[in-house]
Amino acid sequence: MTASLTLHVDYVSQPSRSLVFLCRAIKAPHQENQVSLVKGEHLSKPFADLNPFKKVPAVQDEDLLILESCSALRYIASKYDAAGTWYPADLKTRCKVDEYLDWQHLNTRAHGVGYYMNKVLVPIMKGSAADMEVVEKHEKELGRVEELFASYFLGDKPFITGNTPTIADLQAATEFEQPQAGGYTLAKATKEYLERVREAVGAEMYDELHEAPKELAKKVLQ
Amino acid sequence: MTASLTLHVDYVSQPSRSLVFLCRAIKAPHQENQVSLVKGEHLSKPFADLNPFKKVPAVQDEDLLILESCSALRYIASKYDAAGTWYPADLKTRCKVDEYLDWQHLNTRAHGVGYYMNKVLVPIMKGSAADMEVVEKHEKELGRVEELFASYFLGDKPFITGNTPTIADLQAATEFEQPQAGGYTLAKATKEYLERVREAVGAEMYDELHEAPKELAKKVLQ
Repeated sequence: MTASLTLHVDYVSQPSRSLVFLCRAIKAPHQENQVSLVKGEHLSKPFADLNPFKKVPAVQDEDLLILESCSALRYIASKYDAAGTWYPADLKTRCKVDEYLDWQHLNTRAHGVGYYMNKVLVPIMKGSAADMEVVEKHEKELGRVEELFASYFLGDKPFITGNTPTIADLQAATEFEQPQAGGYTLAKATKEYLERVREAVGAEMYDELHEAPKELAKKVLQ
Repeated sequence: MTASLTLHVDYVSQPSRSLVFLCRAIKAPHQENQVSLVKGEHLSKPFADLNPFKKVPAVQDEDLLILESCSALRYIASKYDAAGTWYPADLKTRCKVDEYLDWQHLNTRAHGVGYYMNKVLVPIMKGSAADMEVVEKHEKELGRVEELFASYFLGDKPFITGNTPTIADLQAATEFEQPQAGGYTLAKATKEYLERVREAVGAEMYDELHEAPKELAKKVLQ
């Protein structure tokens, strides 16, 4: 039987991985449609007709189309997570999940993407050397991001809201993994945090999906 | 009596205005603490001790500190909007509110801030002419943002989710007003949309709070 929920994803994309982790963790009936970024499938029909932003992930559930990953994570957790732990209903806890999701756009994501794109994707697409001045700018910002993440968002808690991982931790982990796949050295505290998310999600699945950005990076990194 | 809810704001800041509009619209008991960006009060004690990101707005409610405006809007609407119209509980409608709030960070906000900051704030702070190459880059992106906003988010609806304004419309309106205050010419459709939000919020209050970015821009625009 076809599930009503479809994830249009590429495992090279950080939020694509977050969505797959969530759906598998909560056993939400769904199907995946792989849209290859490297092949440019996001830029052409049929996907470009579905998504005017021409980006993955995109999510469909019945007649609902969702083009932002944080919104899709909130929606899927609200609808399909029977235990309610991935996007808690308690207002204050939920607010802390939202706060990280709102913050990461211009921080973890902006600089993780900036680092990986300029160091790995642009050289592969253009066949030229990476602009290391730009890469180093993002590297420096990632240091600042890691510090604020550790001091403000984590503190002495294992996960962002406490002892249980939420959709905010999925977004944090997949985004921090991206520059690491591109050769960025994460701080010890960030690595230990990623290990906790990996165990919570299931190490085998976590590693399987993270092969994609690592394999791609091998083409340009020695 | 002191309300438990405190908004740390500067009306020059777009999301500060959104928070004030929401609290006044739903009559949430609150107090405002003005933090002057031009005077650099966000960078020094006591505010910098409260907010490690050194930005306004920041929100406190009882023991909860919220440093991201979209999260604060969600939280305040969820807790204080008895009618439930500003952040609807219906999953699909809520998802469309979230989708705009997630999208705007790297679109309406990034380029509206980029335009206003480079055209107005940097010249005031540094006493030098604006870097028009940077301003024009943001101007071009704002055109793209306006088009996607009109075609994807609004369509033929008066507001983002339909006939009733939500917190997504507050963030959209305050962000589009900012480059306009700095001299950017909005498309007719965007102007008509802003007029609808202005009427919904209350024209007098809407105009009163938007004086701040306009007054500041007068110092550098002829």
